[in-house]
Amino acid sequence: MQPEQPQGGSILDVRVYYEDTDAGGVVYYANYLKYFERARSEWLRGLGISQSTLAREQQRLFVVRGLEIQYRKPAQLDDVLQIHSRIARLGRVSLVFAQQALRGNERLCEAQVEVCCVKAGSLRPVAFTPDIQSLLEKARD
Amino acid sequence: MQPEQPQGGSILDVRVYYEDTDAGGVVYYANYLKYFERARSEWLRGLGISQSTLAREQQRLFVVRGLEIQYRKPAQLDDVLQIHSRIARLGRVSLVFAQQALRGNERLCEAQVEVCCVKAGSLRPVAFTPDIQSLLEKARD
Amino acid sequence: MQPEQPQGGSILDVRVYYEDTDAGGVVYYANYLKYFERARSEWLRGLGISQSTLAREQQRLFVVRGLEIQYRKPAQLDDVLQIHSRIARLGRVSLVFAQQALRGNERLCEAQVEVCCVKAGSLRPVAFTPDIQSLLEKARD
Amino acid sequence: MQPEQPQGGSILDVRVYYEDTDAGGVVYYANYLKYFERARSEWLRGLGISQSTLAREQQRLFVVRGLEIQYRKPAQLDDVLQIHSRIARLGRVSLVFAQQALRGNERLCEAQVEVCCVKAGSLRPVAFTPDIQSLLEKARD
Repeated sequence: MQPEQPQGGSILDVRVYYEDTDAGGVVYYANYLKYFERARSEWLRGLGISQSTLAREQQRLFVVRGLEIQYRKPAQLDDVLQIHSRIARLGRVSLVFAQQALRGNERLCEAQVEVCCVKAGSLRPVAFTPDIQSLLEKARD
Repeated sequence: MQPEQPQGGSILDVRVYYEDTDAGGVVYYANYLKYFERARSEWLRGLGISQSTLAREQQRLFVVRGLEIQYRKPAQLDDVLQIHSRIARLGRVSLVFAQQALRGNERLCEAQVEVCCVKAGSLRPVAFTPDIQSLLEKARD
Repeated sequence: MQPEQPQGGSILDVRVYYEDTDAGGVVYYANYLKYFERARSEWLRGLGISQSTLAREQQRLFVVRGLEIQYRKPAQLDDVLQIHSRIARLGRVSLVFAQQALRGNERLCEAQVEVCCVKAGSLRPVAFTPDIQSLLEKARD
Repeated sequence: MQPEQPQGGSILDVRVYYEDTDAGGVVYYANYLKYFERARSEWLRGLGISQSTLAREQQRLFVVRGLEIQYRKPAQLDDVLQIHSRIARLGRVSLVFAQQALRGNERLCEAQVEVCCVKAGSLRPVAFTPDIQSLLEKARD
């Protein structure tokens, strides 16, 4: 049975190293959040959005406001995981990513991650710039 | 205004060090999961349950099955946070913790974390031992 | 046999949690550097030096320029380690810490860590302020 | 001016994500040790040595016994680093890697890392198997 494939999204491969595992012999639960953030960063980069440029030139950061995650099966040392990411909802100041960690056909973990655009410094919510809004809308479709 | 205090729970103080922060100048979002796990471990230890003994002598591990987390305000370098933890639901093979990270009166972050008891090796769900079930029931009340 | 005790230094207790361990069942080698930094931060705080205040008010950061570390025995889940820290050498812009991780009488790991004072922003070396130099000199003796 | 190139070694590209940085705006000092371990793991994998297979089938682990590291320039969010690795010394139970983190022509950081072969379980030093010794000798030349 095929796992449900995210539509119109992106895929990032990540390798599991010792740094990712814990004494239970599996990937430590917080470290999936690192994989998901790497995937969101690469997804943004694929749209032409660099977060360091955004911070420097437009004083805008993307911050996570909330998330839900379900752990189904553990990943282990040396595994290669495919991190799938797509936009599930898009607003004016925030968006929700649907993300999954797969190992081949096995779905190991899935998350919904709400990301908000904020002003650097104050960390107050602020609308996406028109450029970014338009890039995100195209990516969603 | 006082934040809603968890009833009958425990409190662990954690200090924010450089290792916990990121280039946004705040605690990295995955690292709250480390604080929450430290607090659950100390809470179990307070009940007389050592996870390393449990793994060695009873081949049982506690693993996180899923969680929800809301980030309200960021924590920063040198902050001292109070991590509040209590049992929100208790079953035969799993329990749900309600956890919060406070900085004095400010609620920074809150989570519901479902933890399941599994056999070491197979990682299959298994009932709490009667001893542990009874300790958890007393702790909940 | 007593381990060689650092003279005139400070001791910080740290607990080993799942986050610190890896699939080899022991503390991951990079994580001792986190313990050592926590200990240096608390040591500075004990002298009345807060690194976040220093960064904000005097635009100065302490950064690690180099280190040597020897791993002798592994630490494991639930261990409590004592991190000993003392000044081994003190200059005008940098100092060298001698640090050890002990578990009771066992010496697990030891390091020499060179820390340099730099300007925030440029990250160029800059002399300690006279206040800090004087605090460090007293701490060394 | 070209940086001194490691001879006969391997190169792994790593991207700097938020997880790697700290509130100083640069890569946290312990995280270079993660990059170096990823590079050693990929280097071993390139020789046909999988560490998880080694642990499972031959009860052997590679553990770090000691290291020296010099930090020259900081890496920042979104940087791509090239991690160079080569064998500097090869014995019967241990080897020393010379590793560098470069950003294009800039040398950011360099390390000598002593890795020892140990029995899983006891963590006692044990000779490389003849197969592995022979692979390592070929890789060194």
